[in-house]
Amino acid sequence: MGTSASKLNRAIMADIHRLSLNQATTERWSVKEAVEGCLRHGIPSIGLWRHKIHEAGLRESVRLVRDAGLHVSSLCRGGMFPAPTREERQQRIEDTLRAIDECAELHADSLVLVVGASSAVGLVDARKMVEEGLAAIVSHARESGVRLGLEPLHPMYAGERCVLNTIDQALDMASPYAPMEVGLILDTFHIWWDPYVLQQITRAKGRIYGFHVSDWLVPVPDLLLGRGMMGDGVIDNRTLRGAVDRSGYAGPIEVEIFNQAIWDMPGNDVLSTVVERFTSLV
Amino acid sequence: MGTSASKLNRAIMADIHRLSLNQATTERWSVKEAVEGCLRHGIPSIGLWRHKIHEAGLRESVRLVRDAGLHVSSLCRGGMFPAPTREERQQRIEDTLRAIDECAELHADSLVLVVGASSAVGLVDARKMVEEGLAAIVSHARESGVRLGLEPLHPMYAGERCVLNTIDQALDMASPYAPMEVGLILDTFHIWWDPYVLQQITRAKGRIYGFHVSDWLVPVPDLLLGRGMMGDGVIDNRTLRGAVDRSGYAGPIEVEIFNQAIWDMPGNDVLSTVVERFTSLV
Repeated sequence: MGTSASKLNRAIMADIHRLSLNQATTERWSVKEAVEGCLRHGIPSIGLWRHKIHEAGLRESVRLVRDAGLHVSSLCRGGMFPAPTREERQQRIEDTLRAIDECAELHADSLVLVVGASSAVGLVDARKMVEEGLAAIVSHARESGVRLGLEPLHPMYAGERCVLNTIDQALDMASPYAPMEVGLILDTFHIWWDPYVLQQITRAKGRIYGFHVSDWLVPVPDLLLGRGMMGDGVIDNRTLRGAVDRSGYAGPIEVEIFNQAIWDMPGNDVLSTVVERFTSLV
Repeated sequence: MGTSASKLNRAIMADIHRLSLNQATTERWSVKEAVEGCLRHGIPSIGLWRHKIHEAGLRESVRLVRDAGLHVSSLCRGGMFPAPTREERQQRIEDTLRAIDECAELHADSLVLVVGASSAVGLVDARKMVEEGLAAIVSHARESGVRLGLEPLHPMYAGERCVLNTIDQALDMASPYAPMEVGLILDTFHIWWDPYVLQQITRAKGRIYGFHVSDWLVPVPDLLLGRGMMGDGVIDNRTLRGAVDRSGYAGPIEVEIFNQAIWDMPGNDVLSTVVERFTSLV
């Protein structure tokens, strides 16, 4: 091998230590299949989803990641706090308390909170319900040693999925709590467009719990299942990663891609591309 | 008629003086048909689109709105500044200079600038190209007595349509120029989700040149043609109008709805609904 190939290999080895497969990228795979995929492709971390864990069983999921020596970068997800009735809101809180327990068992870096939205509830009230939901779970998370990661979602989801839509807003929401209790999950798909994103990442220093990458395709094929593989769209993932690094985040970087076409591909092909694009573009 | 019906009528009469039909809402109509529609429905203002004016001819369009006694609340649109080559960027600037001339002929309140985007150009460079494009047209606009209205578009358009995505960003971009030279067009569809929208509207005082309403449907049927009629979605148009009023804007309020289903309806039915929803919800 020539010098440039060796350099390339060293770059791959350095970068891949931070790579984490968010399980949503290989939606058709079980926890077992995703864990085996990570091992085959040298991916040291995994972000798990609760519906997959419930299929496999929590104890079995814990055993699978432990036996594989995988680090669990996050558990997705708790939250979804806004709802028209008090009863429904209490159910969402209780579900998130269970998610905290699962997160503790898995030794995941943090529980990702997608805070929710409700078209039956006005935006202002929905945001209050999120604050109330968060307040209702922080002490249990603290006692369980689980960090709560608020994930701001793209503003196009404000109507039906998540009323938390910018880093600044997430920081304001986290501010009543200690930096080790409530922090942020930053996903380039959700934040890339923001004209003040670099300043906001700087402001987030000390509260960044996770970093997710994918790409924004032009044109957008679908609101929910239209994310792209890094390099296939217009997001400058590397610049955003640099900013997140400078804000002191040195943890795993999850590749999280909701895309029907990628879900329809063989998982091993997806993971090969993930590793290649991650090392060359993130 | 009873008292409440009279009150309702007075409310209608008061509100409708600010109603303006943005021509995009009745996409199938020519300038002539839209002008006649406004007269039939008692709508005193109209927002015109250049492709429709070019079909009718500028002189004929000026005659139509003048003879009808209609106020022209805006001309849509100039801008689209980012492009990979200098030649293309110069073409966009020259086209916008022509739009300024048309705007002056029509005595429109302002020229709406949709600033553009380019997937061939990075987001940061595209934003610089917008600043350069704006700088290249301000003096001609000033000499022509035309106000330039920067319209921040929803962040979901940052990849392909508009790299200007928040009120704060638009105010920063307008700030080198006088408040009567460069201002903002605020459209509830684009700004409703922003957690800091009310503070930003307050900050925009003195620079608000236009206000547009429609609604955000849940789920969103289409990225481009999925806007809703006021009342069919989750936007609190009245609260946003109140904030815009308190920021000193007392001009026309355009109803601008890009929606294939509404375009497929008879224009008169659309205008009846526009008048009814405007008076009851905006």
